[in-house]
Amino acid sequence: MPERCDFLTPSIVDRSPIVVAISTGGAAPVIARILRARIETYLSPAYGRLAAFVGGFRERIARAIGDGRARRDFWERMIEGPAGDRFLAGDAQAAAQQIEEDLVHEARGDGRSMGEVYLVGAGPGDPDLLTFRALRLMQRADVVLYDRLIGDDILSLVRRDARRIYVGKLPHDHTMAQEDISALIARLAGEGNRVLRLKGGDPFIFGRGGEEIETLMEAGVPFRVVPGITAAAGCGACAGIPLTHRDHAQSCLFVTAHGRDGVLDLDWEVLVRPAQTVAVYMGLSNLPVLVEGFARHGVDMATEVAVIENGTLPDQRVVTGHLADIAARVQAAGMQSPAMIIIGSVVRLRERLVAGADAPPDRAHRLSLVPEPDNTL
Amino acid sequence: MPERCDFLTPSIVDRSPIVVAISTGGAAPVIARILRARIETYLSPAYGRLAAFVGGFRERIARAIGDGRARRDFWERMIEGPAGDRFLAGDAQAAAQQIEEDLVHEARGDGRSMGEVYLVGAGPGDPDLLTFRALRLMQRADVVLYDRLIGDDILSLVRRDARRIYVGKLPHDHTMAQEDISALIARLAGEGNRVLRLKGGDPFIFGRGGEEIETLMEAGVPFRVVPGITAAAGCGACAGIPLTHRDHAQSCLFVTAHGRDGVLDLDWEVLVRPAQTVAVYMGLSNLPVLVEGFARHGVDMATEVAVIENGTLPDQRVVTGHLADIAARVQAAGMQSPAMIIIGSVVRLRERLVAGADAPPDRAHRLSLVPEPDNTL
Repeated sequence: MPERCDFLTPSIVDRSPIVVAISTGGAAPVIARILRARIETYLSPAYGRLAAFVGGFRERIARAIGDGRARRDFWERMIEGPAGDRFLAGDAQAAAQQIEEDLVHEARGDGRSMGEVYLVGAGPGDPDLLTFRALRLMQRADVVLYDRLIGDDILSLVRRDARRIYVGKLPHDHTMAQEDISALIARLAGEGNRVLRLKGGDPFIFGRGGEEIETLMEAGVPFRVVPGITAAAGCGACAGIPLTHRDHAQSCLFVTAHGRDGVLDLDWEVLVRPAQTVAVYMGLSNLPVLVEGFARHGVDMATEVAVIENGTLPDQRVVTGHLADIAARVQAAGMQSPAMIIIGSVVRLRERLVAGADAPPDRAHRLSLVPEPDNTL
Repeated sequence: MPERCDFLTPSIVDRSPIVVAISTGGAAPVIARILRARIETYLSPAYGRLAAFVGGFRERIARAIGDGRARRDFWERMIEGPAGDRFLAGDAQAAAQQIEEDLVHEARGDGRSMGEVYLVGAGPGDPDLLTFRALRLMQRADVVLYDRLIGDDILSLVRRDARRIYVGKLPHDHTMAQEDISALIARLAGEGNRVLRLKGGDPFIFGRGGEEIETLMEAGVPFRVVPGITAAAGCGACAGIPLTHRDHAQSCLFVTAHGRDGVLDLDWEVLVRPAQTVAVYMGLSNLPVLVEGFARHGVDMATEVAVIENGTLPDQRVVTGHLADIAARVQAAGMQSPAMIIIGSVVRLRERLVAGADAPPDRAHRLSLVPEPDNTL
């Protein structure tokens, strides 16, 4: 009864000296409790110890760095950089030594000569499928390079004052060549920036991450690679299609049907096999060519196929069929890229699921095959 | 200067009526700022609107449900269940209707007849590679079933008062058959529990998720599947091995070498091919058999191989070599399961990386190929 109260006691997360208090002004104390439980979990107890530890360097740092803005930058780099990492990894002595070294560099004016690069997989599209590491680095970056598959929902989670650079490639309008992107990343890092290269899915599965790290290696730029949920896994989970299954598939093959100059260069003989699921990335526009190739190589045209448009997103659509009719069905549905093609008898499981969901209306609601709404926390 | 202060002003996240305040007691204001930026991001603005919305039902709910414990349960289910989901998805009218329906069910005493199942991928091992959705469901579950690949770091993030059931299979000591696990999940959900089935990697890639949902479908239990980062992607990113690369591999194949009764049943002819990376799950104990099979089928014994033990974890180890010598190298290093085997010329990229890292000691530190320490937030 907020109107009869003189004061409200918030929910507390105690990581002394860090204290977090949560209140809903009496509107919904249960929400405060739920949020407290989550912040309890997010906030490693080590963070409280880190705050106490770095607090011990306050005077030392204030004496060493007069300029307020430079001092704040130093603190940030200390906490989020190697010194903080070392303390959180359990080595306080190494962390203290690192801080002393950083202060020496700062005094010499070379505190921030070289930036670093985070090559981060943003997952299949739903922001809720980002990893904690991806989000942390998104909030640490000075510059973000992103492409077409990164939606606004995900981009809005990047640090507010970070510079955003679009380097997306449109199907027939190559805005920036891969070489130029790699060179730009290396240059920005060389200028001292923390550069985030944000990629849909996983950077090392059809993400050209390998090409980008080669350039960084040559330029001597430090980097780290953060995996993401690849589109095939995201689409499988959200469309109810297991990629492997004891009775259907003992292996799964990821290929791309987006050849150079549109020409498909595939191992047709080995692609579609019994007991193997095939996930085709970026293949929608080549679907008729793909089906024709399979037909030419003697693949059973009764093989099940699913096409998932906007997989994991609220507007996800799934069309299923067989090699014989999938191209016509997809065209009839007017499906657009991005879309994932999954080929193999595992697709039958989805059909059973959907059949079950269609039957009693109550179960149809409860079978949560559609993605969840945006409730990031 | 905390000792000269009468009061401290905390950092504030304002999602009215929700307010979160963060203080470090003056020890390290920069940490408070960093935490605030993160909580800003975690805490969708929609949550504030949700708090205001459900706050409008306080009196109605207080009148309808007299018992305090039952009322608190109702609030929790309302906020974290379909009503909350609908509001956050933007449909306040449907949410209000859902709350009224829920109140009717509550009055009838059938508010919680059927539970639900979350089949969640916990990723490759590092808790920092969990997704937001995975963590949220971990904190919502009443019962958690987990197996051997789920480490303590991850398990500690499960809701404190959730019941934990170990259903792991040890190599030679099958603690629980898959059929029994599936039946147990269905039974627990039937009793009204929110059951979390936590699996290493992705539930639909060698996770037997397909088998488990079949049982749930038959039992009419609602479920949702949450993808996770599969081990091959996690190991690739943390060992510096791209699974695809323009100059090396246009496809990647995931197989398991853990056959029934230890017998390997693989498509030897098509497994190792030019321009294809192969990731072998659960194959360490069968590595000599695997190599021998390749030799018998004419695969080039100079093909590069990497074996990654405890991939993504702080004690990750990587051994590289060629098909001809990898078994001996792995034995010499005393590697243990869990381990991932990656076969293909992409392994050369790691070797270049490590060579670069070995050269100047400064770069060796900065090339962050080792996983980050535990700084979950």
